[in-house]
Order: sequence, then C-alpha cells, then structure tokens
Amino acid sequence: MSATVTAAPTARVGIVGGGQLARMSHAAATGLGIEVHVLDAPGAPAAAAGARLVAGDAGRLDDLVRLASRVDVVTFDHEHADPAALRALVDRGVAVRPGPVIKRLAQDKLHARSVLGTELGMPVPAFARVEDAGDVAAFAASHGWPVVLKAITGGYDGRGVRIVATPHEAEGALAALGRPALAEAHVAIDTELSVLVARAAGTGETRAYPVVETLQRDGICHETVLPARVEPDVAACARALGLALAEAIELEGLLAVELFVSGGDLLVNELALRPHNSGHVTLDGCVTSQFEQHLRAVLGWPLGATRAIAPAAAMVNVLGPADGSDPGTRVAQALAVQGAHVHLYGKAPRPGRKLGHVTALGPDADAALHAARAAAHTLEGRR
Amino acid sequence: MSATVTAAPTARVGIVGGGQLARMSHAAATGLGIEVHVLDAPGAPAAAAGARLVAGDAGRLDDLVRLASRVDVVTFDHEHADPAALRALVDRGVAVRPGPVIKRLAQDKLHARSVLGTELGMPVPAFARVEDAGDVAAFAASHGWPVVLKAITGGYDGRGVRIVATPHEAEGALAALGRPALAEAHVAIDTELSVLVARAAGTGETRAYPVVETLQRDGICHETVLPARVEPDVAACARALGLALAEAIELEGLLAVELFVSGGDLLVNELALRPHNSGHVTLDGCVTSQFEQHLRAVLGWPLGATRAIAPAAAMVNVLGPADGSDPGTRVAQALAVQGAHVHLYGKAPRPGRKLGHVTALGPDADAALHAARAAAHTLEGRR
Repeated sequence: MSATVTAAPTARVGIVGGGQLARMSHAAATGLGIEVHVLDAPGAPAAAAGARLVAGDAGRLDDLVRLASRVDVVTFDHEHADPAALRALVDRGVAVRPGPVIKRLAQDKLHARSVLGTELGMPVPAFARVEDAGDVAAFAASHGWPVVLKAITGGYDGRGVRIVATPHEAEGALAALGRPALAEAHVAIDTELSVLVARAAGTGETRAYPVVETLQRDGICHETVLPARVEPDVAACARALGLALAEAIELEGLLAVELFVSGGDLLVNELALRPHNSGHVTLDGCVTSQFEQHLRAVLGWPLGATRAIAPAAAMVNVLGPADGSDPGTRVAQALAVQGAHVHLYGKAPRPGRKLGHVTALGPDADAALHAARAAAHTLEGRR
Repeated sequence: MSATVTAAPTARVGIVGGGQLARMSHAAATGLGIEVHVLDAPGAPAAAAGARLVAGDAGRLDDLVRLASRVDVVTFDHEHADPAALRALVDRGVAVRPGPVIKRLAQDKLHARSVLGTELGMPVPAFARVEDAGDVAAFAASHGWPVVLKAITGGYDGRGVRIVATPHEAEGALAALGRPALAEAHVAIDTELSVLVARAAGTGETRAYPVVETLQRDGICHETVLPARVEPDVAACARALGLALAEAIELEGLLAVELFVSGGDLLVNELALRPHNSGHVTLDGCVTSQFEQHLRAVLGWPLGATRAIAPAAAMVNVLGPADGSDPGTRVAQALAVQGAHVHLYGKAPRPGRKLGHVTALGPDADAALHAARAAAHTLEGRR
C-alpha cells in the first residue's frame, strides 16, 4: 500500500454554511475537480458528505477569514452571514461572490423592495416601512386589509411573516416580528413562480433556467414543476425580469427570483442569492444543475446549458414526519417508485424539518408530480 | 457554533478499492443517505471526494476484515481482491456481493470461458488452455492464425493480451503473459457492445440497460454510444444474453458483458462484475446511473429505471496527455462546450492514464459524440 498521488484541485470554493445546498454543491463539484470547504459546525450535512470543514460561525469575521484563507472564492449556502463581516472580508481582498452589496438584497427585505420597486422600476407589491399599528392602518387605508407584515431581516421559509386584518393584530405582529417591519399589500395569488438566473463573475455571461412553478405549503416552497404551467408570455416575462435583475445588480453567482402571478400580472416577491429550494428540480431535470451552475458562476467559468431534459420535471420536499421517525429508514421502499430520484440531506429528523427531496421526470407535470409525490410520501411514512 | 445532529446513514457499503468507480459510487450514495467506506491507500480518488477511508490493501485478509467490520455489505471497485481472502471473508459471515464464486468469472479468464461457453452454452470465441508454442500451433491448426493469447488473470484495459501470427511469436508472448495462458480464435470484429445488467441481492430483481456501443483504442474502451448503432435484433439478443447470464450466475450486483458483433453474430468477450467504463454513459444518459444501481443491487433494494433520457448519449474518456500536463487545468475551457458533463477523477496526470471522462446527450449519436469529444479533447489539450 502506498499513498495515491492525487491531482491538484481545479479550484477551491469556500461556502459559508454547510447545509444541504452546500452538500449538493459538493457533489456537483467532485466531477469538476473542485475542492469545497464549508464554514459550519462539525457534522454539517456537506461535511458529512465529504466537503472540507472549517469549524466556525458565519457571524464571526475570524472564522470567515479562516475559510477565505483556504479558497479561491467565498460564496454562500444561506443568507445569514454578517454583512459587516462580509464587507471586512472584501476589504481584505477576498473574492466574495455575490458581494455584500448584492447579498443585502436577500438579507434586508425593505432594501430589496426599494431597489427593485423604486430604483429599478420592477413590479412589486405595494409596500411601506412601518413602526407601529398606526403606520399599518395608514398603509391599509391606501391598499386595504389584510396587510402582510414581514420582518426586515432574518425571515425565511415562512418564518417572519404575518398576515393581519386589524390594527390590533398589527400591533401583536409587530411585537413578534420586531420594528421597523415591512408592510405589503396582500395580493390574490394565482400562481407562484421562481426564475433562476446565473451570471458569471468576470465575463458577465448570463443564463436563465426555464421558469419553475412553486406550490407552497405553510409559506414554504413545497413542490415545484418545471416548466411552470403558465401562458408562454407570462413565462417569458418572468424570465426576462430575472435576466434584467441579474444584469442590473451585476450578479456574480446564482439568483432565485420568486414571483407572484396575480390577475395575470407578475409581481416580484423575494430573492435568494444562492442555490434555492425552487431550483432543486434542475438537479435531475436540466442539463446543468443549479449547484454546478452556481460553482461555474462564482468561479467565472463558462455557464452550462439550462434547458430541460424532459417534457416535465417535478420536485417534492421530504419533511420530518410528526412522529419524529427518520425518512431514511424508508428509503428502500421509496426507491421502488420508478423514476424517482431521492436526495436525502443527512439531517437528524424533526417534525416539519426539510430532510430531503425527490425529483422525477415525466411526459407531463402530473406524471412527474405523481412519481415524486409517491416517493416523498413513502419517505414520510404517509403511505 | 454547536455540532449539528446528523441522521444515521441508511446503509453502510464497503468498497474494495477507492478508485474512480468508488468515487462516483460515493457521489451516487450521498443522496440516498448511504455511507461509503473504501479500502485503499490514502489519497485514493474516492477518499478525496469524501468516502471514508480504510487504509489498507485488497490482498490482505486483515484489511478486508477491518473494512467489513464497518459496513453492511462489501463490494468492489476492481477485480484484484484476493479470491482466498474473499472466501475467508464469506466464511466469517460477511455479505460479499458479488460473492467470490461469481467474482472469479472476472478474475480468471479461462474459468469464465469454460462457464460461459461450455457450461452455459453461450456464444464465445473458440478457446483453449495453452502452455507452449506447440499448444498454440495445434489451436491454430483448427482455428487459423493469428491467435489471441491472454493472461488468465490480472489483465485489464488491453494489458495481458497479445495477438500472435507464428509459433515463434507465441513463444515470446507466453513468456511475457505467463503460462498457462488462454488462446482464442481471432475474430473479425464489426462492432463491440457492452450490456450492463443489475440483479438485486435477496429479491433477484433483474434489469438491463439499453445496449452500449464501445469504441476501443489500444484495447481500451475509449468512447461509448448509447443506444448502440446496431440492428434492433442484435441489440435485443445482446440484452437477452446479459439478462440470461445474470440469472444463470445468480448475480448480486452489477455486471458488464462485453460482446463482439462478428459477421452478424454475437460473441461474449469479457465480463466485469462491478460498475464499468462502458457504463459511465449511464451517469448522465439514463434515469438511474450504473453507480446508484450497483448500490441498490448489493443492498437488495429495488432497482431503478434503466431507460435512456435522450435519443442518444455518448461518453469519451479523458487520458493523460503525452506532455504530462493535467487536464484539470483546462476544465474551464472544456465547460464552454454546451451540454458536456465533465467528470474528473482527481488522479495525478500521467501520459495515457484515465483521468476522467465526458458525457453528452444529443438528438443522435453523432451530435452527442461531437460534444463529448470536443470537451474531452479540450481537456487533453488537443484543441
């Protein structure tokens, strides 16, 4: 036995956060010869799958500096890195992609609304900064009740959002969400969409994926269908908005734009500046997955083709069952569903926690959804 | 920062050998929640990608026992495990899949010819066991010159094969190959095919992939096309032979059957009892890759769909260039080829060494080959 001589990595990418997005990025990186380092606690899903671990915290500059010292570029698995620490990192000459200015669009909802709606003139729901129930009532006087209140920072997956119908409810919601908060007009949603766009550092090459339809449950993207079942002009417009936004903000990396279709009109809802749950369907459904695309984009490499490889693809999340059981114990049964691709995240089960997802291709959306649901529900012990 | 609580693996699989096949098996295992342990030297490609390393040697029983103690089932990345050590492992109650009796079909070419040709009555080239030039001349008297001489054990990728046209050449070849050797009639090859078949432990569920056409260079499978460009009846017959063989030997795992088409007839050439280079095209070309299928089969889990996801798919190997340069340094250029999927193995470059492969899908074989070659040749510095 002698140590095998290995090739130098083609690149080293640091990811702030070692959750499932970093885990799937690591899997995509392997074939490209890219070495992935993640900043997270020991046992993080990406580290369990073989990404190099930098044990530490996204909120601590020292830890971010340790990560940066090992890699060519720093990018993200989540939106919770400390903005001041990221700016300090950039000041030290670290390639942070996307950079703190862009990243703020996903960290600060009021800022995002201002940039998108006011500066860039994109369609967004009516919004205002509110401090108290009086501000909310004034907003409702123009836009009607109910009003959607959102925490300006820190909310995700439905957390940090309240829908209120009276000033009294608004007061309670603000106490819970923190002040100031973001008030938004409550829009009647016909369909929710997501557009994924990548833009490469250095070259500015930009590519959008086919538009994804997202089916929410409890404010969480729970199922997706690609391509979205909307009129071609709506899909084209959504894609154009995504491309225009990527260009306007000089994106470096991957962007997910969540949109509402309301009365035939498109409204931009929220942004994620990283791979996104709505893009998991690209993993088995498109020529280049969002994870590989994100790596290519932050490294300034050529982007990959985004086209779908089947008439339809679907993704269904696997959530921790109420009985606390582990979906992993049912993986063999789930694999009996032909055509289902099971992706488990290696996370300990907890009721409602996202523990994995299933994708499937099909001749149409219903067939793909049917297969993906069958496997996901089996994993959840629901059949 | 606190340690993340992780889920228990869904299964633990031990692989004898940590090369590129184990590396790609590890990548396929991640989403299924399977933990992969490999027996190899430090720095092995699979370990570099995150598989757990058991540092040791496939020829040592102690090392195999250490691997087995960590996992639910032991399987293979290569054909070089010591048969006596594997038998000893089975005697200790370890689940070795495929077992030593089946594995011998890929380790002992004379044995394989006898089982396939004589016992099972499958079409194989005429063959004989030869000790010296006189035996070879006697064989040639019946089957004509030239004669193909093969080392009975240890040969792969074109090594251990000589084509001889005279008794004098035979004598020299036997001195190099070792005695006894296997003599085979030299057949005029129209096309070379490979059939991949998986059969699940316990259940006996069996599935064959669409037949792959292999394009050899210097005795090595260098490019593949899926589906093979042969008449439907030839493909159907090849697939049937693969399925029949898997059933006859009570396969547990994955089998690659290499076949010749000669004058319209099929002849079984060699076997591999593990994922195989000819099956790399399934990685991006079929619903379930050979790597995931192999894991499912040895674990006794349901097998996945084997159908192609595009009209055609192609695979081209990436070999170490003559100048010793590392293809990894050209990965960004190669990714500019739209639709090419690059899979690097993380191995140090050496002229002629298999360092990776590229797959591509297309509307037909030519288009898929064109894209895969463009990226592979770019990696090799040939364009």
